[in-house]
Amino acid sequence: MEKIEEIAKQYFGTEVTARDRAIFEGAITLGAIFHQFTGIPIIKSLIPLLKETIEKTMAIQPFIKQINVKINDQSLRNYEHTYDYSVLSGNTLELEVISQYGDITVHLGMKYIAELDFPLMFIKKIEKK
Amino acid sequence: MEKIEEIAKQYFGTEVTARDRAIFEGAITLGAIFHQFTGIPIIKSLIPLLKETIEKTMAIQPFIKQINVKINDQSLRNYEHTYDYSVLSGNTLELEVISQYGDITVHLGMKYIAELDFPLMFIKKIEKK
Amino acid sequence: MEKIEEIAKQYFGTEVTARDRAIFEGAITLGAIFHQFTGIPIIKSLIPLLKETIEKTMAIQPFIKQINVKINDQSLRNYEHTYDYSVLSGNTLELEVISQYGDITVHLGMKYIAELDFPLMFIKKIEKK
Amino acid sequence: MEKIEEIAKQYFGTEVTARDRAIFEGAITLGAIFHQFTGIPIIKSLIPLLKETIEKTMAIQPFIKQINVKINDQSLRNYEHTYDYSVLSGNTLELEVISQYGDITVHLGMKYIAELDFPLMFIKKIEKK
Repeated sequence: MEKIEEIAKQYFGTEVTARDRAIFEGAITLGAIFHQFTGIPIIKSLIPLLKETIEKTMAIQPFIKQINVKINDQSLRNYEHTYDYSVLSGNTLELEVISQYGDITVHLGMKYIAELDFPLMFIKKIEKK
Repeated sequence: MEKIEEIAKQYFGTEVTARDRAIFEGAITLGAIFHQFTGIPIIKSLIPLLKETIEKTMAIQPFIKQINVKINDQSLRNYEHTYDYSVLSGNTLELEVISQYGDITVHLGMKYIAELDFPLMFIKKIEKK
Repeated sequence: MEKIEEIAKQYFGTEVTARDRAIFEGAITLGAIFHQFTGIPIIKSLIPLLKETIEKTMAIQPFIKQINVKINDQSLRNYEHTYDYSVLSGNTLELEVISQYGDITVHLGMKYIAELDFPLMFIKKIEKK
Repeated sequence: MEKIEEIAKQYFGTEVTARDRAIFEGAITLGAIFHQFTGIPIIKSLIPLLKETIEKTMAIQPFIKQINVKINDQSLRNYEHTYDYSVLSGNTLELEVISQYGDITVHLGMKYIAELDFPLMFIKKIEKK
């Protein structure tokens, strides 16, 4: 373990396991992405650029191994005139975040669920190496 | 359990426990608060109002029982002229979030740690009723 | 004029008038409010609190005299279960910003316009004392 | 003029000139960039990507002709360990926004000014074709 992580660990309860921690770190990043990036003006042609920016900047956060972003282009407006653009919203955004702490890898996600009319965040899978 | 939660649970892996879930929900809110509220202009006299707004709006999020916000006023500027104000930053903000899922209650926090020069998020305590 | 403003003015072109400046300052605040506050979880009972927070924190910005916020509650969800809440969006938010520089007062606004399907920002009135 | 702009213009006071409007539109984008993008995790190697994303997404906004972003890398941390990264702040960010309405082009900017200890927004130049 990095020496710096020894310092950080002092602030966590002694009962906190690697599994707890991996879930914790991934979930922070889901909440962070939603509240940092929603509101950005977006048109279809800029989806690859914005996707890459979210994936790479947010993967800087502690213990984040990988992020996959999907922006649903069928819900975006056509940019046929000055005011005809969308802003990124929770309903347009699909996220996969993979976090890792010690020997635990967690796959987390966010997706708009029609039945709930809500961009649900969830834990898909918890793996031990 | 609410009927709506039965729908939501289908998106979670079957291995996900109440403990996993309570940590997950609390951590989302930590990440969300940081990325939603940093950047707001702030002066000392408005601390109580902004504190209450963060605590109450973010406690709407699923399975959040309570939020306590502290904004460190000694680091804020004095508002002695037009340009003399601060914006809320991670280093100024202290958070306590309490989440609950089933019989598990989790206490999470965020605090600027001088040794790391970083606003560290952490899990303080995991309790089973 | 405040001494500090003499310093700030050096960065503005010499052709910039009080009218230009009052419009400039008010427009910054419109753009700032939209991109700072959209995304916040909101339910009907918290409208007065969030309204007051936006009005008071954003009026700290230079040369902003007054802000009036209206959050359209008929578009908000009912909070009948865990996932039944809204987040603040441009379509839900109505803004009035009054800026003042020298002897010029400008009334600016933002409002969702159905014909454009867009939260339009506009200059309502420019007044000279 | 686009037909859609005839609709938008109805919401503006009749005294509003092309000069007023060009300043207005550019200033909105300055305020929007600050409050949308500050808070994003950033390390030196990701500066070109984040710069391009800000420039292209925010130029979708009405009557914005061009945006140039500079992120001052000497103030960024070195990413030598897990917690050693920066988040984008007003003091790290330099902006140039060029707006155009009718025959008026306006050059606006934002830059950290040490004398004010403030990321000042300003109007550099107003040009008539």
